[in-house]
Amino acid sequence: MSSAATSAELERAWLEATFDRLWPLARSLTGAGVRETHDVLAETMPLERYEVASGTPAYDWTVPLEWRVNAAYVVGPDGTRVIDYADSNLHLLGYSVAFRGRLSRSELDAHLYSLPARPNAVPYATSYYAPRWGFCLSQRQRDALPEGEYEVVVDTETFPGALTLSDCLLPGTSGREVLLSSYTCHPSLANNELSGPLVAAGLYARLAKWPTRRLGFRFVFAAETIGAIVYLSMRGQHLLERLDAGYVLTCLGDRAALTYKRSRRGDSLADRAAVAALPAFGEVRWHDFSPLGSDERQYCSPGFDLPVGSVMRSMYGTYPEYHTSDDDKAFISFAALQGSIDACEALCLTLEQGGARYRSLAPFGEPQLGSRGLYPDLTVGANNVGAADAIFWVLNFADGDHDLLAVHERSGLPLADLHSAAQRCLAAGLLELVD
Amino acid sequence: MSSAATSAELERAWLEATFDRLWPLARSLTGAGVRETHDVLAETMPLERYEVASGTPAYDWTVPLEWRVNAAYVVGPDGTRVIDYADSNLHLLGYSVAFRGRLSRSELDAHLYSLPARPNAVPYATSYYAPRWGFCLSQRQRDALPEGEYEVVVDTETFPGALTLSDCLLPGTSGREVLLSSYTCHPSLANNELSGPLVAAGLYARLAKWPTRRLGFRFVFAAETIGAIVYLSMRGQHLLERLDAGYVLTCLGDRAALTYKRSRRGDSLADRAAVAALPAFGEVRWHDFSPLGSDERQYCSPGFDLPVGSVMRSMYGTYPEYHTSDDDKAFISFAALQGSIDACEALCLTLEQGGARYRSLAPFGEPQLGSRGLYPDLTVGANNVGAADAIFWVLNFADGDHDLLAVHERSGLPLADLHSAAQRCLAAGLLELVD
Amino acid sequence: MSSAATSAELERAWLEATFDRLWPLARSLTGAGVRETHDVLAETMPLERYEVASGTPAYDWTVPLEWRVNAAYVVGPDGTRVIDYADSNLHLLGYSVAFRGRLSRSELDAHLYSLPARPNAVPYATSYYAPRWGFCLSQRQRDALPEGEYEVVVDTETFPGALTLSDCLLPGTSGREVLLSSYTCHPSLANNELSGPLVAAGLYARLAKWPTRRLGFRFVFAAETIGAIVYLSMRGQHLLERLDAGYVLTCLGDRAALTYKRSRRGDSLADRAAVAALPAFGEVRWHDFSPLGSDERQYCSPGFDLPVGSVMRSMYGTYPEYHTSDDDKAFISFAALQGSIDACEALCLTLEQGGARYRSLAPFGEPQLGSRGLYPDLTVGANNVGAADAIFWVLNFADGDHDLLAVHERSGLPLADLHSAAQRCLAAGLLELVD
Repeated sequence: MSSAATSAELERAWLEATFDRLWPLARSLTGAGVRETHDVLAETMPLERYEVASGTPAYDWTVPLEWRVNAAYVVGPDGTRVIDYADSNLHLLGYSVAFRGRLSRSELDAHLYSLPARPNAVPYATSYYAPRWGFCLSQRQRDALPEGEYEVVVDTETFPGALTLSDCLLPGTSGREVLLSSYTCHPSLANNELSGPLVAAGLYARLAKWPTRRLGFRFVFAAETIGAIVYLSMRGQHLLERLDAGYVLTCLGDRAALTYKRSRRGDSLADRAAVAALPAFGEVRWHDFSPLGSDERQYCSPGFDLPVGSVMRSMYGTYPEYHTSDDDKAFISFAALQGSIDACEALCLTLEQGGARYRSLAPFGEPQLGSRGLYPDLTVGANNVGAADAIFWVLNFADGDHDLLAVHERSGLPLADLHSAAQRCLAAGLLELVD
Repeated sequence: MSSAATSAELERAWLEATFDRLWPLARSLTGAGVRETHDVLAETMPLERYEVASGTPAYDWTVPLEWRVNAAYVVGPDGTRVIDYADSNLHLLGYSVAFRGRLSRSELDAHLYSLPARPNAVPYATSYYAPRWGFCLSQRQRDALPEGEYEVVVDTETFPGALTLSDCLLPGTSGREVLLSSYTCHPSLANNELSGPLVAAGLYARLAKWPTRRLGFRFVFAAETIGAIVYLSMRGQHLLERLDAGYVLTCLGDRAALTYKRSRRGDSLADRAAVAALPAFGEVRWHDFSPLGSDERQYCSPGFDLPVGSVMRSMYGTYPEYHTSDDDKAFISFAALQGSIDACEALCLTLEQGGARYRSLAPFGEPQLGSRGLYPDLTVGANNVGAADAIFWVLNFADGDHDLLAVHERSGLPLADLHSAAQRCLAAGLLELVD
Repeated sequence: MSSAATSAELERAWLEATFDRLWPLARSLTGAGVRETHDVLAETMPLERYEVASGTPAYDWTVPLEWRVNAAYVVGPDGTRVIDYADSNLHLLGYSVAFRGRLSRSELDAHLYSLPARPNAVPYATSYYAPRWGFCLSQRQRDALPEGEYEVVVDTETFPGALTLSDCLLPGTSGREVLLSSYTCHPSLANNELSGPLVAAGLYARLAKWPTRRLGFRFVFAAETIGAIVYLSMRGQHLLERLDAGYVLTCLGDRAALTYKRSRRGDSLADRAAVAALPAFGEVRWHDFSPLGSDERQYCSPGFDLPVGSVMRSMYGTYPEYHTSDDDKAFISFAALQGSIDACEALCLTLEQGGARYRSLAPFGEPQLGSRGLYPDLTVGANNVGAADAIFWVLNFADGDHDLLAVHERSGLPLADLHSAAQRCLAAGLLELVD
């Protein structure tokens, strides 16, 4: 077994073990489940934790009260617990208010959520900003509930607490940054929750091993929407000044082909890098930006308009398992997750190499390559045709305006060859790095 | 019969009755026929009349002398009037100078205009800027004129008078304007004259009934070329400051599909509105701007380059009845005229709604829609996917730069839905109208 | 025989006679063969000669020592000269250092250059910047060389001399210029050397006969690469200020269709003129710019980025005869050379007419054409449709921004018609020439 194989297998085992630890944690917008999730992620990467107090304003929003579930269950007419949050944290409507009482079957029914079209699945449901209580269950189970009196216990509390966010910056030499953002606010959902943080953490481990980094890579974990907005209220100005590109990572664990959703700008460096890097991983489904979806709509809100796209496999909202208990461990594949990390690492490498801009120190005519060992000193017939194409391309477009990805786009030469040519020219004193 | 049907039928009856009144009036560049035409139009809309004195300079031009026809006829060898202006105002060459005399058949022939290729039609002919007299008749009639002596009476006068123009502004709240321009200088021609003023007047009546108007709609009637140039000499600076879009209305009565000719800029708001609005009325024939045609060539002259396109059915110069007596009442259709008013009203509504630009008052991240009743407060599975798409699109692109038509172009959502979403956001204090 | 036929036949005879004189001259980067070549060209055009001393710096380069060949041959074991520079100047590796000695067959072999894949051809080979000596011969001859002792004489010298360049400017009235550049540094090669100077000289003779010239046409002859760089060090600033367009002329004698390689900008006037002018000469093979090839890579280096493309038939490096003794008189066609002159003259005429920008002196509305005799004063039916289209187009786009080529591109009207219309408008005082 080769060492590379070993490394890939170790990574895959780590992904599955971490998934199994994160799966049962009771995540919501706020609370202990979120903190435990961030604790697990912090074992892989040096996350800085932010606890933003309830009531803190963030643009148009206010950090909500924290929500705690002590217990939540329904006891049937025969005295057995027919629904219990302890079995699955999907069973309780997110942010349910406290309630205790005895209800008839039909009174109870007004508080039940199920999916007639998908009768075996428990839906994921929330009511963050309107006071409700409720239980989620499969349509099949709901239909089987007999008439009679039910005892309902929703022992929850909301109280002034905090919203939990984490970030960390894997630093680069240039001061420029790439954002990688995912969310940690859904309970036990595999593709539309855990795939994002798992790919992000795996990607961190990969990037941390690069021998050098021109770019800094900033990883952010926060609740979807409110968390991203609070993060922007803390770091938005910094991102406006520093961000070269970014991606929201979500729904990266299922077995479908990759999906790329462009940034609002449509032709940002993030988007151009996706065009250059992702097709190597199979046919890509391309989507133009829309202000719907995940946190790209916050990063691309008109006050920021950051160059942030989104990388997915099956897009949220488009697959039938979405936001149901069927989005579970069986629905995803750890090989697919690892392929997603491969694709994201390729994106990051494309940004690292392709986002660099160089300026020629000998821009008037071409520099003498032969005397520097960059071109053959003997020409016989057509033997030198193509001998130093990458170098000629890099030097001609080292105008401080074209980035190396633009040289790739115009020349069709592999970015890696252009990067290597640029390094040789840098070493020969023919170029300087602009950023 | 529904009230809407009644209203449409009343409009159609009004169109035909007005056509019948306008048809016999002896229009030319100047004169009583033009004034009578404007009098009729002024019954529908509060036209302001301008009488610009002969000799008044207007850029490279000078307002010509006024032309009056007292009588014009040819008496044949047998003593009967073989051609008479009293029968049709097409029979006399426009701006014919006065003449009285007796001529042989061949001497007369040098002053006759007919169309060999269309032997039953009387051509429309003019000689505005070179002194001539002549008569127009069908080739068939011309061929039948016997040898012998003819008596010719051209009892016309030119004298210092005035060029007649009219305009009116249906005001809007924004100070921005839309120009709707047509001409009133051809004698009895239906499609290539009366269809334009009739559609303009019908459109005025429609727009006047709108409950509110952001845009002002400016209607102009003037002689083609010289009239438009004189109007620009009076209002060109105002139009440069205020005009968002405009259209020359001409040849809108025949039964063919719509034609749209783009403004010189090619992608002006006028052109984008046409792309959005006109296809609902059937396949559209699109033409790029050319500096040939009607008064768009004045509005789009290089000193102005106003955003003015042109709406037609069959384009001038391309149909065989053009500029002949066959362009008569039978050639046009009042249903087609009414359909043209529908299309123009849709264009105006697209400008009214789609030309508006908004600025978000909560541009950093998205505003909290749920608390404002703009988004469902309960999420179960994928039930909210698409619940407020129009609002999200409007808010994200409310950057003071994109107009609502651009949001329609990017999102593919119906403009009416986006407009409605914008109104809800305005009411919620999330947006302000930029213009 | 018509006079035009005579003129074309005289030109073709001149081309062949000049080819025959230039063919045997021993061209290299430097030296007497180059000077003799420029002497011949100077018989056709008033070339200014520049002798730039060895050691002169030019950007990243230094003018090399001059190289002189007194004699170079190899005597075989039987005492006969088996390879002799006197037979063909291709036999000696360019810039070979001096050597005298007796070598075995295998020692000699390390200094022989041949082409196994093209066994009858002698390759063209150089070692400008590394000290070597060597002989070029056909693979067939090389294989036939017997074992035994060989006497080698390479009687060459390098010494402080000069690099030879020539240019001349056929002046125009506007101060704007077009560059036509070719090279004179290869020994006896027909397509990839002499075709360029011959077309340039023939083009000069054509342009010199034009009755007027708005543009100046600058012809440059220099060694490829180092010569162009030295020329830029002398005239680069002037070209930055004055150049509207330029072309590198090379490989214009073979029988293939034309090839056009775009300038670095991709849409420069040079490129637009090629699109307008070249298709009349048959299907054109279009290539985007690449910083490989001939001296376009110097003119389009990032410090200059001049609007310089390249006109060819078969592109250098792509045909099997390239840089071998098979690129000889038989490989080219004097009819093809003359067709290349035709194409280049058409390019120059397109620049001369199409690069002109005009400004209307009556830009507000259209000027009154009829009173100036530019439009018919009698309109009957549709008879004037199209009567003055070119004039209307020229006047409408005489905004000082669109050049006449842009009017051609938008209108589809022949450039010659637009040019003629512009001249009529200039004469009528309606336009002024901007540049």
